[in-house]
Parts: sequence; C-alpha cells; structure tokens
Amino acid sequence: MNKQYRIVTLGSHSALQILKGAHDEGFKTLVIALNKQISFYKRFPFIDEIVGLNAFFEFPEIEKKLLDKNIIVIPHGSFVAYLGMEGNKKMTLPYFGNKKVLDFEFDRVKQGDWLKKAGITTPKEYKNINDVEFPVIIKSFGAAGGKGYFLVNNHKDLVEKIPSFAKASEGKKYIIQQYIVGVPLYIHYFYSPLTKALEIMSMDRRYETNVDALGRIPFDVDPNYVVVGNSPLVLRESMLPEAYEMGEKVVKKSRELINSQGLFGPFCLETIITPDQKFYVIEISARIVAGTNLFIQGSPYSDLTYNEPMSTGRRIAREIKIAIEENKLNLILD
Amino acid sequence: MNKQYRIVTLGSHSALQILKGAHDEGFKTLVIALNKQISFYKRFPFIDEIVGLNAFFEFPEIEKKLLDKNIIVIPHGSFVAYLGMEGNKKMTLPYFGNKKVLDFEFDRVKQGDWLKKAGITTPKEYKNINDVEFPVIIKSFGAAGGKGYFLVNNHKDLVEKIPSFAKASEGKKYIIQQYIVGVPLYIHYFYSPLTKALEIMSMDRRYETNVDALGRIPFDVDPNYVVVGNSPLVLRESMLPEAYEMGEKVVKKSRELINSQGLFGPFCLETIITPDQKFYVIEISARIVAGTNLFIQGSPYSDLTYNEPMSTGRRIAREIKIAIEENKLNLILD
Amino acid sequence: MNKQYRIVTLGSHSALQILKGAHDEGFKTLVIALNKQISFYKRFPFIDEIVGLNAFFEFPEIEKKLLDKNIIVIPHGSFVAYLGMEGNKKMTLPYFGNKKVLDFEFDRVKQGDWLKKAGITTPKEYKNINDVEFPVIIKSFGAAGGKGYFLVNNHKDLVEKIPSFAKASEGKKYIIQQYIVGVPLYIHYFYSPLTKALEIMSMDRRYETNVDALGRIPFDVDPNYVVVGNSPLVLRESMLPEAYEMGEKVVKKSRELINSQGLFGPFCLETIITPDQKFYVIEISARIVAGTNLFIQGSPYSDLTYNEPMSTGRRIAREIKIAIEENKLNLILD
Repeated sequence: MNKQYRIVTLGSHSALQILKGAHDEGFKTLVIALNKQISFYKRFPFIDEIVGLNAFFEFPEIEKKLLDKNIIVIPHGSFVAYLGMEGNKKMTLPYFGNKKVLDFEFDRVKQGDWLKKAGITTPKEYKNINDVEFPVIIKSFGAAGGKGYFLVNNHKDLVEKIPSFAKASEGKKYIIQQYIVGVPLYIHYFYSPLTKALEIMSMDRRYETNVDALGRIPFDVDPNYVVVGNSPLVLRESMLPEAYEMGEKVVKKSRELINSQGLFGPFCLETIITPDQKFYVIEISARIVAGTNLFIQGSPYSDLTYNEPMSTGRRIAREIKIAIEENKLNLILD
Repeated sequence: MNKQYRIVTLGSHSALQILKGAHDEGFKTLVIALNKQISFYKRFPFIDEIVGLNAFFEFPEIEKKLLDKNIIVIPHGSFVAYLGMEGNKKMTLPYFGNKKVLDFEFDRVKQGDWLKKAGITTPKEYKNINDVEFPVIIKSFGAAGGKGYFLVNNHKDLVEKIPSFAKASEGKKYIIQQYIVGVPLYIHYFYSPLTKALEIMSMDRRYETNVDALGRIPFDVDPNYVVVGNSPLVLRESMLPEAYEMGEKVVKKSRELINSQGLFGPFCLETIITPDQKFYVIEISARIVAGTNLFIQGSPYSDLTYNEPMSTGRRIAREIKIAIEENKLNLILD
Repeated sequence: MNKQYRIVTLGSHSALQILKGAHDEGFKTLVIALNKQISFYKRFPFIDEIVGLNAFFEFPEIEKKLLDKNIIVIPHGSFVAYLGMEGNKKMTLPYFGNKKVLDFEFDRVKQGDWLKKAGITTPKEYKNINDVEFPVIIKSFGAAGGKGYFLVNNHKDLVEKIPSFAKASEGKKYIIQQYIVGVPLYIHYFYSPLTKALEIMSMDRRYETNVDALGRIPFDVDPNYVVVGNSPLVLRESMLPEAYEMGEKVVKKSRELINSQGLFGPFCLETIITPDQKFYVIEISARIVAGTNLFIQGSPYSDLTYNEPMSTGRRIAREIKIAIEENKLNLILD
C-alpha cells in the first residue's frame, strides 16, 4: 500500500539515509536537489526520482507540481537553512513532524525555557558581560553547522571579540553561554506517537574543524567549530536510564508548552558530560541529525531493539508505513 | 536444552549486551536491578524477567530465591563495585568464570606480578616519591571507572597532590605509576576452555571526561579520567600477532600462578602504544569490559571469524551453550 | 569458475580483509607470510594456504613456485615497504592494479604534479627554508606509516631540526610542506574499469601515536605520527559530492599522465579539512589502505550501495570475479 506514497526530502544533510530507509520500507523516493548536485544523487539506486532546482527559493514552484502526487516530506537539519522557518511553515505538502515545534527550536529563549521546564540541566546564559564567569562560548542565534562560535576565557578577550563577533554574525542576535568543560555526546532519539514509546536510536560526537585537531597541534590555534563529520560512541550503561529520561521529559513538556501533539519523530539532545557524570544539554534538534548517518545498518542501540538494520531514516519510514496501515497518518503529518 | 537455563546478571555495565547475547543463543534471561531502574530494563524485549532490589547489599536474599532455578550468573565490571570482592566469592549461584582470579585482579601488586611474569611490559611503579621520574599518574587501589586518577609532571605538584589525593581516595592505598605517553587501545579477548583457543573479539578506546575534551580547549584544565563511554578502533595488522600473543601469555601464566583453571572467558588488556609501536599494559580486566558494548552486532575482529553477529556477551552465552551440550559446565562455572 | 583462481597477498597491512573478501567471493586464498607469523595467519579459517619465508627478499623464489597455479596477487600498502618498488615492478605473477602508477605514487614531485593537474588542492611545498611560512611539516620521501614526520612552527626550530631530520631519514630526500590546520579525513575509493564507476567504500581517520594522545596531556610533548590504528568517520553529506568529484578527477588525470589504463581499483585520498570546508589532499595512496580494515562487514557508505556486507577487500575480489566471468581479466591485471 505504501507503494503509492513517495517520500521526499531536500538533497543534503541526511537525505541519503532518509531515502534509503524509505526505499527499504517499500516507498517510492524523490529528492529535490540543486541542479549541480543531480549527478551526485543519481549515483544512488534507491532514489527513484530527482527534481532539480537552481536555488532552494524555487521550492514553492516545485511544490505546486508535486501536489497531485502522494507525497510525504521528511524535513532534516538543513530545511530551515535552505527554506527559512517561514518556508517550512508555509509548506503545503504533507510534512512529517510538528511544525509548531520550529518556533521553540529556533528561538533560543524559548528553547532554553522548554529544556529548563522539562527539568534538563542547561548551561548558564549571561545577559550582562560584567556577570560572566569564564570560560564562555558566544553563539549567534540560528548558527548552523557550528559556524560562528567563539570560545572566550577572560574579560579582555570578551570585550574585544563581541564587536567582531556581532559583525561576523551579521547583525543576528547572539548569546553568551557558560562553556561546560566536559566531553560531547549527541543522543539520537525517536518518539513514536503511534506506540507512545521513546527509543534511543544511536549516539555520536561531531567532528569539528579545526577544534578536533587542536589536540594534535603543539602550539596555540584559535578554535573553530565547523561540523564536517561524525564519529560513533556508546554511553556507559549506568547513565543510559538518565539518557532515556531526559528524552521523555523533553517530549512530555513539549505537549504542555507547544501543543497537544508535541515533539515526535527523531530528535537529538546535544550534551556535554562533566566528570561528575552530569549531562548538560547545550541544544535540542527537533528533527533528524547528521550524526545518524553513521548508522545506515543500525547502531549498538537500535541493534538491541530491532532484529534488522534500523537507521533513523528507516525508522521514520517505518512509522509512516505503520500509520498508513493503521489509517493514522493525521497523527504524524503537519 | 539451554531453554531450561536462565542467564542472570546485575543491571548495569554491560547487562544489555550480556542478556541480548543470551537471548540470541536461546537462553531465558533475568536481570537483577535496582528498583529505580526496573522501568529502564523493561524497555528491552530480550529480558524475560526482572528482579528488583533497593540496594545491592540485598543481593544474598535474592540469591536464596533463585537457588531453585537453573541459573548461571555472568559477572561484569560492576560486580566487584556492587557486591564487593567477598560478595562475589560468597555467591553460591553458578558463576561464569574463575573466582580465584579476583584476588589477582584486584590486588595491584599481584596483578603487576602476574603481568610481568607473563612477559608483558608494564609501566614502572614508584615506592619512594624521591625516585620518581616524571610524568606519573597516581591511582588508588580499586579505583573504578577512572575516578580518582591524578596526572603529575613535577616534584612540587607531586608533594602537594599526594595528601589531597590520599584524602580523596578515603584512606585506600594508592600507587604512583609511570605515565606512558602514547595512545590508549583496549583489546577485548575471549579464551575458551572448551576449544583452548584465544579470540580477539573487538577493540575500543574509552571516552573519558574531561580528559578527552582537553584537546578541544585552548587553556589549561586539570584532567579527570571518568569513563562515560567508548569509541571503536582497529589495530594495525602488523601489530595484531603481538596482541594475540600477549593474551595467550596472560592466560598461560594464570594457570601457573592462580590455579589450573586459570583465566578464561572474556578479559581485556588495557594498553598504551608508544611511538616505537610498543604495548604497555596498564591494567588487566578479568571479565567483560564496557567497551564491548559498541559491538552488539559484532566487530571487525569477530566478523573475521564468525559468519554471524557475535558480541562478547553472545560469545559467553555460546560458550555456555556448548558446555551444556558437551556436558562440560564444570569447566566454565565456579 | 573463480574456484580455480587463488587470491594471494603478503601477510601484513590488510591481508586479513583481502583474503576474507576473496573467500567470501568464492576464491581460494593464499598468504605469503614471515615464518614467525605463520601461526598468526593460521588462526583464520578463510585462509586456505600459507607459504612461509624468512624475509621478504626471498619473495622471488616463492614466486617461481607459484607460477604454475592460477594466482592473482593483490598488493596493499606494505608491498613497497617489503618488496621495494622494483620488486613490485619485476613481479611476474598476475598483479591486480596498474604498476605504472607506482612511479607517480612514490615520487613526491610526480604525485604532487598529478594531484595539482587534476585540480586538487594540495599544501604548499617549500624548496628554500627562507621562504617558509609556518607551521610546516617535514616528511621524508617514502616515509611509511607516519614515521619520521616533524612539525615545526618557527625558523629557529626548522634550522635546528633539518640536520637531525636529514640524519634520521638516513640520507633520503625530504620535503618541507605547509602544515594545514584542520581535521584529517581519509576517503577510501574504488574505481572499476569494468563499470567505469567510482565508488566511495568508507572513510576513516588514522590513530597515530603519540600525536593523538597530546590532547590528553596538559604539558608539552613533541608529536610523533606513527600510525597504529584507525577509527571510523562519516562526512557531512553536503561535502560528499566534492569527495566523489575529487576521486573522479584523480582517476581521469591518471589516464592522461600515466597511461590509458590509469589508476583503478582501491585508492585513498588523505585529506585535511579546514574551517572553510575546504579539502586539502596531503597524499594519495594508489592501493588499499589500512583504514578499510574497520569495515569488514561494510561501512555507512558501502551500505548505501550494496545490499550485502562489502569491504574494500571483498570489492576487489568481486571485481576480479566479474572480470573472469566477462573474460576481461586483462583490463585489471598487470
């Protein structure tokens, strides 16, 4: 039955994983890609159709042509970067996920509020540069892919860097956040509105240039945090119950704060773990993150619960498939 | 036939891997978990039964109730932390492994003796702080999970830190060990008393907070070594023969030093590799280590020898299954 | 039909992967190993035959004995180290790959020329120490496994280290190369002359001692770059098209510069990625690299294109199998 549906996403981020997963669950697949990347997406046999555009602002035109097909769009981490938040909200094609979550994800004040009210530990944020306890990291609102982060460890550098940062962030607002000294761990969740169960699909850490090379260089270099890849991790089992609880708290609170549907599908808590084994959540991503690309054939976590290879991309398609079978697509589309 | 047996472990460390492996080999599974973690272990369909307790000191009472069932207990790295060494030794339930090894594993003098007599290179240990060549690392006896380690690079810091360390380690004895400058590699072995063959199951490195973040921070931070996860590695093939030989030497020597049964089942050599490609073994763990949790579906090493997914947890269950079939349980239980 | 052929390699580097892959594709396998490592290779059931020698200079004698068998030799990264470039060229056994590529791979001037003419960005090289912009890395021609690299960040150190380096590199020539500050990523390609398609098989980063430990040590240590292992990575999807293009450019240019057959089979571009998401290629390896040993059961990349576990070693055997079936062995052997 799901043969009648086409799973669609934009060509970037985790499109390959999403479309491979959709294909494995029996869906037709379609990628909307920049013309210059059509030849790239043609390499993959699980992509049934490619629609090209010159720039992503042409998306609304593409959308019109797709309206007569049984389309379900899977958003990923580049949707907001490419279409803007408004572009996402205006999309008329059936969209996997809850668009209301976008307002809470992309407003740092609302996001912090959501996490804190859910009982999650987050780093302190400083409004006044005179209150700052060092080290801190300066981040622009809506910074993507780790670009435009600055680590500062003293007042002099802070005062010096704020103006150049404000310039670099092109007038966007920024926050001054406590820098937590600990190791990063990104936890990939999937919450099913059909089974009402939360799953941990996998975990990773980002591979960031140049900061992940600093430890290899015996002289001083200013760190940059541009994400160019990911590497796999597992978490100590005694900390795993808390990892699940954090995910459940965030989902639960989203239903109170956002709307009754709340957060569902894939999401990620980006944590820093300190030596007292405490999780600090520095960010929530309310959709599939690129770290899941490591696990096309499943992860140590999905391998615990599935007797078949289960990526997050495939898990999304599985959810849609079950919703179609149970006639509950309304629960997972927006 | 193995359907009649229940594989049991404590809820922590590598319990999920052990019980998933047991389930995959056709055993019934039971986890003994803190009451507050029952809901966590309920998430996993391969766990047939959960017995709750308020604290692990209640274990002897649980044990009495389990005596009439066909139980086999699989110890893991948290057994000594939770039950104490005496608690492990007093256990009357059939226990996979040789309990006599515990005395050699948890006494640093005996452990060092064992490794050195086996021909393994270990870091120097200093009895007198005036003899110390820097850098050194101070470790308490029985430190678990990397907590309570101090790296010291000069005499002044050593003299200053020893008292605060002695306090932090709460009167436990400590050692001053040569700090080997090189990269860590943890080798996961399995020795079968049935086939008399040693296998390398997988390899990892620990993910330690905050020390594994230091390289990302351009200012000075004191290192901590608290293990919160693991990441996968493979070793250069030209060094693999030596990795096997080290494992075999340790097993062989254990039969001379400990008793005729010696070390068997899963164990781990925790190595540091220096630029001259020399292995220094900083520790032996005589049971399953948490780094194996990365390999629920097998590792590049188990994939060389098994045509099916083979975690260390599953390998243990396989050994028990074969022992049952061959009526040789006495060779692997204590 | 491929049952009649034996896949042969030298016992080191990626021999296990190559022979396991050959076995999985239905070939007989043979390893030529040092006598002291025969017991090691005997551990692996997918190796049908082991031929021992005391030292690799005995290889020509072995070769004579093998001439009457249907042998195909798969070279790997240790072939030049063990047999010398001349030893490789003189080999009369059927050899998978194009030996003409050796001249371009092992001459740093020719290699740099090849890459630059292919439109690949490479680090600057300095002929005159007075022109140097720091940091730079000094590398000897033909340095293997990362041994004999020196990182230098100022003129004084450069002047001091050059003589000691020249001594350490035993009269071999050396280059002074711009040190690119960024994260390493090694891309494993396979180009098929049969399908004329380029595949990305997997990616890794090297695990080097002691440089990959420096970030864990809060005092100054001189870096060494000796490769002792590998860890897995995936690349940001938006950079993947460029990764494919780089591979295709290198293959295409090889047909113009080297000969009509050009580069084929497995090869690796060793890249450094800077914060502006630019790839610098610091080296090309024109054969299977050891980083592929992580992926005995496939990688996130091979999992996208194959519905079965596909290592690079197995991919080589698959290519040979197809060539046998299509009577095109001449296209892939030298």
